[in-house]
Amino acid sequence: MHRFRISSIDQDYFLIDGEELHHLTRVLRLGPGEEILGFDHSGRLWRGAIREINKEQAVCSVIRAEIPETEAKVKVYLIVGLSKGEKMELVIQKGTELGMTGLIPLRTRRSVMKLEGTKAEERVDRWRKIAGEAVKQCGRVIQPAVAPVLDWQDLPAYLPADTQWLIPFEGEKTVSLKACLKSFDPSLPMALIIGPEGGFEPQEVLWAKEKLGAKSISLGSRILRAETAAIAALTIVLAFYGDLG
Amino acid sequence: MHRFRISSIDQDYFLIDGEELHHLTRVLRLGPGEEILGFDHSGRLWRGAIREINKEQAVCSVIRAEIPETEAKVKVYLIVGLSKGEKMELVIQKGTELGMTGLIPLRTRRSVMKLEGTKAEERVDRWRKIAGEAVKQCGRVIQPAVAPVLDWQDLPAYLPADTQWLIPFEGEKTVSLKACLKSFDPSLPMALIIGPEGGFEPQEVLWAKEKLGAKSISLGSRILRAETAAIAALTIVLAFYGDLG
Repeated sequence: MHRFRISSIDQDYFLIDGEELHHLTRVLRLGPGEEILGFDHSGRLWRGAIREINKEQAVCSVIRAEIPETEAKVKVYLIVGLSKGEKMELVIQKGTELGMTGLIPLRTRRSVMKLEGTKAEERVDRWRKIAGEAVKQCGRVIQPAVAPVLDWQDLPAYLPADTQWLIPFEGEKTVSLKACLKSFDPSLPMALIIGPEGGFEPQEVLWAKEKLGAKSISLGSRILRAETAAIAALTIVLAFYGDLG
Repeated sequence: MHRFRISSIDQDYFLIDGEELHHLTRVLRLGPGEEILGFDHSGRLWRGAIREINKEQAVCSVIRAEIPETEAKVKVYLIVGLSKGEKMELVIQKGTELGMTGLIPLRTRRSVMKLEGTKAEERVDRWRKIAGEAVKQCGRVIQPAVAPVLDWQDLPAYLPADTQWLIPFEGEKTVSLKACLKSFDPSLPMALIIGPEGGFEPQEVLWAKEKLGAKSISLGSRILRAETAAIAALTIVLAFYGDLG
């Protein structure tokens, strides 16, 4: 069944407008009487029937609330060193499908792309749109939040104080991701800090260890590109706790 | 240390030519006396010193054989329904980094792209080149083989008879990938059969079960794009057996 983000809801009706309305009427050519699923950012999902369509909106009557089972139980945030645009877009699309809770773009020392001011805001808007499209495609109902571009010192305040931080680093040869997960509490949030294309500088890893209590981990003997490391690490965490595969 | 595919080797010297020579001389501007790593398709790796460079080749003296630890112990093949070009390229690049043993492009009923004849050969050549570039980037020494484009009936003969086949399918709601892996023998090859963009038709899954003995599995409650499913399933298998993360 087709899914649409709704603009508002009361007890009996929900409304669809804007781009979602365009998609409903022009792309899918749905009309009155047809059943659809509506969702909002809160993670709630409703089955509804289209009652009326005008230029401004589609009015749908609520049939019943549906219980979505598409959200991972473990909360995993990806913190990704700024890399070239298409790599970040890939991570946001795949991360959303796989089940990440949120993503934070991070300015790092070796980030070639330095996003500031309105340019950063525009880029983040674009990334949020990509997350929104991926949410619909994969059947999720909660859109992972894409944070503004942050610096290292902004990280501690941005995520809950009990977050369990992990930083894959090629200088770490002994501790594996899976070994670390065994000692983690799956009821608390986790954050994976992934380097940019050129990797982290050792001082950055040291900072993460000292200020965030992050554990540096190895992803194995092959050198993964930044975007591959992000996708693989997220997959391993979600699969480890039974939220994927 | 920089790594180059070698064209030939005897006991004391190895040679580098063609594009690899271009990369060595023009891109990296290396010269006599510098140490490099040479590898061939057999999985062997040598440390060598450049002795002489001419227009045709670089002659390097062998310092010692190195033992690569970059190959996964478990052999995992990806069999991927033909999807649009850039998706297959992404799977080949990421699959190589992550540690796949080989990839087979498969004609399926819902494959929009139908590759035949010389067009198929050209495309496979391109995919092999992508695998070759990824091998160098990630530090592997064995290049995953990219097979010609095959049809379903070609599969049984193409992989060893004791291959353990898995087919992620959205119609499978109960058996997870991880549950299946618990009963598999990691010393035998595994093959993950991944659908094209539109997914498999149920008859194809039935065929895989009957003719290959494939087990259909679920990757979880979110709908993954074809290329995401390939990358995630491969990651989960390699991580499960300790070959990643």
